[in-house]
Amino acid sequence: MSSEHLTLHTDKYQINMMYAHWFHQTLDQRSVFEAYFRKLPFGNGFAVFSGLERIVSYLRDLRFSEADLAYLATQEENYDPAFLEALRQFRFTGSLWSAQEGSLVFANEPLIRVEGRIFETQLVETALLNFMNYQTLIATKAARIRQVAPDDILMEFGTRRAQEADAAVWGARASYIAGFDATSNMRAGMLFGIPTKGTHAHAWVQDHETEEEAFRRFAEALPDHVTLLVDTYDTLRSGVPNAIRIAKQLETKGKRMKAIRLDSGDLAYLSKTARTMLDEAGLDYVQIVASNDLDESIILHLKAQGARIDSWGVGTQLITAADQPSLGGVYKLVARERDGKLEPVIKISGNPEKVSTPGRKEVFRIVNKETGKAEADYITLAGERDIEEQRPLKLFDPVHPYMSKNISNYEAIPLLRQIYADGKLLDPLPALSDIREHHKRQLALYWPEYLRKLNPEIYPVVLSPAAWKLKMDLIEKYRE
Amino acid sequence: MSSEHLTLHTDKYQINMMYAHWFHQTLDQRSVFEAYFRKLPFGNGFAVFSGLERIVSYLRDLRFSEADLAYLATQEENYDPAFLEALRQFRFTGSLWSAQEGSLVFANEPLIRVEGRIFETQLVETALLNFMNYQTLIATKAARIRQVAPDDILMEFGTRRAQEADAAVWGARASYIAGFDATSNMRAGMLFGIPTKGTHAHAWVQDHETEEEAFRRFAEALPDHVTLLVDTYDTLRSGVPNAIRIAKQLETKGKRMKAIRLDSGDLAYLSKTARTMLDEAGLDYVQIVASNDLDESIILHLKAQGARIDSWGVGTQLITAADQPSLGGVYKLVARERDGKLEPVIKISGNPEKVSTPGRKEVFRIVNKETGKAEADYITLAGERDIEEQRPLKLFDPVHPYMSKNISNYEAIPLLRQIYADGKLLDPLPALSDIREHHKRQLALYWPEYLRKLNPEIYPVVLSPAAWKLKMDLIEKYRE
Repeated sequence: MSSEHLTLHTDKYQINMMYAHWFHQTLDQRSVFEAYFRKLPFGNGFAVFSGLERIVSYLRDLRFSEADLAYLATQEENYDPAFLEALRQFRFTGSLWSAQEGSLVFANEPLIRVEGRIFETQLVETALLNFMNYQTLIATKAARIRQVAPDDILMEFGTRRAQEADAAVWGARASYIAGFDATSNMRAGMLFGIPTKGTHAHAWVQDHETEEEAFRRFAEALPDHVTLLVDTYDTLRSGVPNAIRIAKQLETKGKRMKAIRLDSGDLAYLSKTARTMLDEAGLDYVQIVASNDLDESIILHLKAQGARIDSWGVGTQLITAADQPSLGGVYKLVARERDGKLEPVIKISGNPEKVSTPGRKEVFRIVNKETGKAEADYITLAGERDIEEQRPLKLFDPVHPYMSKNISNYEAIPLLRQIYADGKLLDPLPALSDIREHHKRQLALYWPEYLRKLNPEIYPVVLSPAAWKLKMDLIEKYRE
Repeated sequence: MSSEHLTLHTDKYQINMMYAHWFHQTLDQRSVFEAYFRKLPFGNGFAVFSGLERIVSYLRDLRFSEADLAYLATQEENYDPAFLEALRQFRFTGSLWSAQEGSLVFANEPLIRVEGRIFETQLVETALLNFMNYQTLIATKAARIRQVAPDDILMEFGTRRAQEADAAVWGARASYIAGFDATSNMRAGMLFGIPTKGTHAHAWVQDHETEEEAFRRFAEALPDHVTLLVDTYDTLRSGVPNAIRIAKQLETKGKRMKAIRLDSGDLAYLSKTARTMLDEAGLDYVQIVASNDLDESIILHLKAQGARIDSWGVGTQLITAADQPSLGGVYKLVARERDGKLEPVIKISGNPEKVSTPGRKEVFRIVNKETGKAEADYITLAGERDIEEQRPLKLFDPVHPYMSKNISNYEAIPLLRQIYADGKLLDPLPALSDIREHHKRQLALYWPEYLRKLNPEIYPVVLSPAAWKLKMDLIEKYRE
């Protein structure tokens, strides 16, 4: 897909830091940044990584246009023209490692690692976080909704309430990754190949003399795709009886009505009553679609009340992640070049949870070979050999060291894959269908206790002893 | 500005309704839709209308590309090729009336009216709502923040937590309309001419051997734009003293440091102490910038505690409208063509507040000529002459008719202006600087009781007697 020009989709301070590096001729200094979040959203037990396709298309097109440069020349910082010339030559020549889209990911583990000249690793921070934060947030929200309706049809219907156009399409894609079946947004359908669904609005009914006429004329136009919105006037006294009449007319033409849609009122009561009415009319094949400000909690409660809903159209609550509309992903310098070699750096903070973990790191998902289930994510420094040599691992909680477990019969699956090497995209990204399958396989790696919606068990993300020691040593150094 | 191709930025049901109208050859039937919201966001007393520039650029570019048509041909609905040909010829030939960006607007009054062939009025619903809902939401949030810091510098810093790229730039613009001074997003700066601001990140400090060295080198590169982030290690023991040293060095070169930035910790305490330290060093001109998950409530409380902050960088809470991340704007059919003339239509609902107000309507802001203040917004049907003839108006609350007031010495300012006439854009839209001025003048029209952040007085939006009677008559008709 083509993407709009996003090189200046960055914060001004990135440009100013690039300028300062250019000024001091430190722009080629090597640097390693890692992106991660500190807290899972929605009280969920996991997040679903998403955003990589967008990031790759952004990096691929990353260059300063003449318009960009002309704009930068107007800034009050009065950038030196030779700096603008350096930007004109700019290409992304760095390397990128990333979690796969659809992977389950957790707090405080690197999800993206960028290595390269400080001139480029600094520039890309803003856009990478913007894409990763939003898309991972929505995929995670969608996974929660999928969890309460494992066998139903889930449709993303949120465009009109999305936070502008990009959110609508990338949110639709993130939802599809995490198990939604379709979107109403046609542009998302075209860009990504997501199935699209849609029927008619209240306006269609209002635009006809009677509801029955509106239904009949809709069915005449699209006889194989008849889902009728039954709540314009009175769901049970008008909408459903009219829909039943249309379904019977369709039967005489050898056609089957697909569904009715409920968009207001008591969805539990209405769906059960409508189900009975449809069944008594011999229309057990007609499904019931519900919409109207749904989220995972409302769906769970409706199902607990025995609602007879086959298909859910989820809008605002999903596409804005309304109960927590941002993921706090950050992008931190973990190593920098000194005297020709990389040296780890730490960010100290008065808030203990904001202290960064220094050094260029790897993450391994440790899967118990006996159970086939993930035991922990294990973070190592480059050069550690325990994993490679399949040595027994001690997975320990540094705050509560008595809470540790040993594992020896394990498979260690790297969470991060290399995507770019020195500015070159290595392999094509997986197809969306493969990403969906990958997401399902990821879910199967986990005990249900980690996946449940309410009060999930906390999945361990642990540092190797070497990574832990490095962090402690650097904290000590800065305390001096 | 050029805009990306958004014709398929619509819900599938719009395409299906267009198909059904094409099938029955009712596609040219005239129709009137109005967009409005039912409830003000954030418990605020007003909203700030925004989104029109985006809507106009969308309508201007609205045509089905060959790629769009090829995609539609793949849909399971199996659209007739002659329908796709009708789409190929499609242009927006309708008329559009809209509130001005920056205007104060209220619940249950039309903000946008679209008139045209049902084929086109239906298509544009999704995108119009998407743009109006998000941008109006963010402008309203920004107005709340401006209100608690009337004399301070306000900067929008939210890109990394925005809901994807469009939200970042259009949210920056909406914030600027409602009184923000700058954004960190360079693309928003370039697209809209918004001033941009930015300094350096923690990574700049981490990337040097010492904080002082980092500060010094940043000041060497950008000596006229030195704002130093002082919380990387220890704000009061390291950051502020190092910043003071740099400011003194700058003074020897005839330069003045601009500011220090606080990004963590107790902003009230730190800002007061840092202010004292700066002042005692003779640096009373160095300002203090604060950031870190700010919103209007935190800023209000910080100011109540005597925080000495000159400039606020507001991110996540603003750009996502975190406490209410969607505005529930809707788009309802209010009139349709029958036998060559427009007839009003209503949408009934079991929820009384969801019953629509029928008919093509105008909105007048009734300004008391004695006070210069707005008394109410007054909704009329086309053809009413009370306003034109300056007759005394009775502004009455239909639920509580004893609560009415009469006004005779008034100016009636139309809220809606015609933007498109039969597919033609009438006048260029106002410049962003004019929109900002317009917003300030709008605020001046209101008594502070309507504008306050907590428990504002409810500004009256009233129906004319004729509009009220039409609504009652149509409700009665549908009850039969």
